[in-house]
Amino acid sequence: MQKLRKLLVVGVGLIGGSCALALKRANAVREVVGVGRTRANLDTAIEREVVDRARTLDEPWALEAHDADVVLVAAPVAQFPSLFAQLAPHLGPGTCVTDAGSTKQDVVAAAREAFGARLHAFVPGHPIAGTEHSGAAAAFPALFDNRSVILAPLSGTDRDALARVTAMWQACGARVDTLTPERHDAIFAAVSHLPHVLAFTLVAELAARPDAAAYFDNAAGGFRDFTRIAASSPEMWRDIALANRNALLAEIDGYADALAAARALISAGDGGAIAELFEQASHARRAWEMRRPK
Amino acid sequence: MQKLRKLLVVGVGLIGGSCALALKRANAVREVVGVGRTRANLDTAIEREVVDRARTLDEPWALEAHDADVVLVAAPVAQFPSLFAQLAPHLGPGTCVTDAGSTKQDVVAAAREAFGARLHAFVPGHPIAGTEHSGAAAAFPALFDNRSVILAPLSGTDRDALARVTAMWQACGARVDTLTPERHDAIFAAVSHLPHVLAFTLVAELAARPDAAAYFDNAAGGFRDFTRIAASSPEMWRDIALANRNALLAEIDGYADALAAARALISAGDGGAIAELFEQASHARRAWEMRRPK
Repeated sequence: MQKLRKLLVVGVGLIGGSCALALKRANAVREVVGVGRTRANLDTAIEREVVDRARTLDEPWALEAHDADVVLVAAPVAQFPSLFAQLAPHLGPGTCVTDAGSTKQDVVAAAREAFGARLHAFVPGHPIAGTEHSGAAAAFPALFDNRSVILAPLSGTDRDALARVTAMWQACGARVDTLTPERHDAIFAAVSHLPHVLAFTLVAELAARPDAAAYFDNAAGGFRDFTRIAASSPEMWRDIALANRNALLAEIDGYADALAAARALISAGDGGAIAELFEQASHARRAWEMRRPK
Repeated sequence: MQKLRKLLVVGVGLIGGSCALALKRANAVREVVGVGRTRANLDTAIEREVVDRARTLDEPWALEAHDADVVLVAAPVAQFPSLFAQLAPHLGPGTCVTDAGSTKQDVVAAAREAFGARLHAFVPGHPIAGTEHSGAAAAFPALFDNRSVILAPLSGTDRDALARVTAMWQACGARVDTLTPERHDAIFAAVSHLPHVLAFTLVAELAARPDAAAYFDNAAGGFRDFTRIAASSPEMWRDIALANRNALLAEIDGYADALAAARALISAGDGGAIAELFEQASHARRAWEMRRPK
C-alpha cells in the first residue's frame, strides 16, 4: 500500500489505538493524530506513542481532517452523528472516512445525513476484534493479526477510498471481507450482540441476589469464559443495543423461543432429545473451532 | 497425607484420569486401577500411565473395591445408581467411596439406596475443574491446581473417610470447601448448569439456520469464549440437566424473566437503564475476576 501521510483517529480507544499501533508497526503511516473526549486518555496515547499529536473534542479537531488520507471514527456509535456532522465541512479532496462501529445500517444513515454529496468518500467498516478492555492503555499492535475486518461499501462508494481503507486494514494484519450493511447487522446481532446481552443479563441477575457472593465464589472456568464479555464497556454496548435494536430484538425473541424449547425438554425429562440438542451444539462448536483461523 | 495403597477410578475420563495423574505426581498413591466402558479408552489410560491396571464394566470390576483405600466414581452421573449397586457388596472395611458428580442431591439419594448401612463410608464430592475435552486422552496432572473441590458430607459421614478424601484432593493441588448437597445444587445450577444450557441453546439454534455458515464465519473472540462450554460432552450434560432438573428449571425461569426485562429496556430504547444493567454486570464481572484465585 501507499504509506498514509496522515491518519486521524477519532476515539483513541482499544480499536482506534490498536489500528494506529498496527500501522506504525508496518511503517504504513507517517503521522497519527488522535481525537478524544478526555485529555487523560489522549495523554496515555501520546505517552504510549499510539498517536503523535492529540486534540480534545473541545478543540477545533475537525480541521485536522482536511489533509488526512484517512479519518477513522472509532468512538462509541451513539456519537457518530455529531462527529460526522463536525467532520463534513472539513474533508479535504483526498480525504476518505471510515469507521469501526459494531453496527452498520445506523452508521450509514448518519453518514448519509452528514456527508451528503461526499457520501462516496465514506467506507463503512467493522473490525472484528476486541478484548474486554478499553481505552488507549489497552491498545496493542497485534490486535488485528489474522482477524477479519468487514467493510460494507455502498453502491456509490468511491473505489479509491475503498481500496485505501482495504489496504490500511490489510497493513494492520487483518483480512478484509465485505457484507451489505443489512446483512452485517443481522449476522452480528446473532453472533455478537445477542451473546453480549445474554452474558450481561446473567451476571447482573446473579449480582443482584442477596447471597451473590456464594454464587460467585463457586463459579469456575466455564463461567469465566461464558461471562468474559460481560466485563465489556457498558457505554459501548448500550449504544450497540440501541443502534441495532430491531435485529437484536429479533435475535432475543428467537433465542427466548429456543430456550423455552430446551426448557420443555428438560422439564419433560426427555433425555434423548436433550442429548440430541446438546450434541448438535457440541458438534457445530467443535467444527467451528477446527475451521476458524487461529 | 498417608499414601494411598490403592485407588480405584471408575470412569477414567478427564476428571478421574487427572486425579490419578495428580496423585502420581504427588507420589500419593501406590496403585491406580481404572474401570471403564470401553477398552479403547482404558488402553489409552494405560498407555499414558494414567492407570496401572484396568477393567471394563463387563468384567468383575467391583471386586477391586475390597482392598481399595478410595473408590472415585467419576462416570456420567446417570450411571451412578448402577455403579453404586455393583460396588456396595464389595466395599472392604477400610474402603471409602467418593464421587466427582456435578450434582449432589441425586448422587446422595443413589448412595443412600445402594450403600444403606455403609452410607457413612461415602463422601459426596465435586471437583470444580474441567475443560471442554473428555476421555483419558484429555487427562493431565495440573487440572486441579488451585481449583476448588466441594465436598458435601452428610451428618453421618465417617470422619476418617472425609479426612482421607480431603487429603486426596489436597494432594492433587486443590483446596477443599464444603456445602450441603442442597446448597451445592442450587449454586451450581446458577453458575454452571444454566450457562451450559444457554451456550448449548445458542449454538444449536445458530447451527440449525439454513445460512448457518455465514453466521459462524463471522463469529469472533467473544463468541468463542461465550460458547466454549457448548463443545462439552452432550452425554455428561444431559445427565446433569436431568439430575439437577428442579434447580435448573428454576434458574432457567429466573433467567428468562431477566432476559425479558432486558429486552423490554432495549425495546423501549431506554439507554439509561440499559447502561445501568450492563454496568452492574460489568462491575460485578470485573470484581469477580480480580478476586478469584488464578
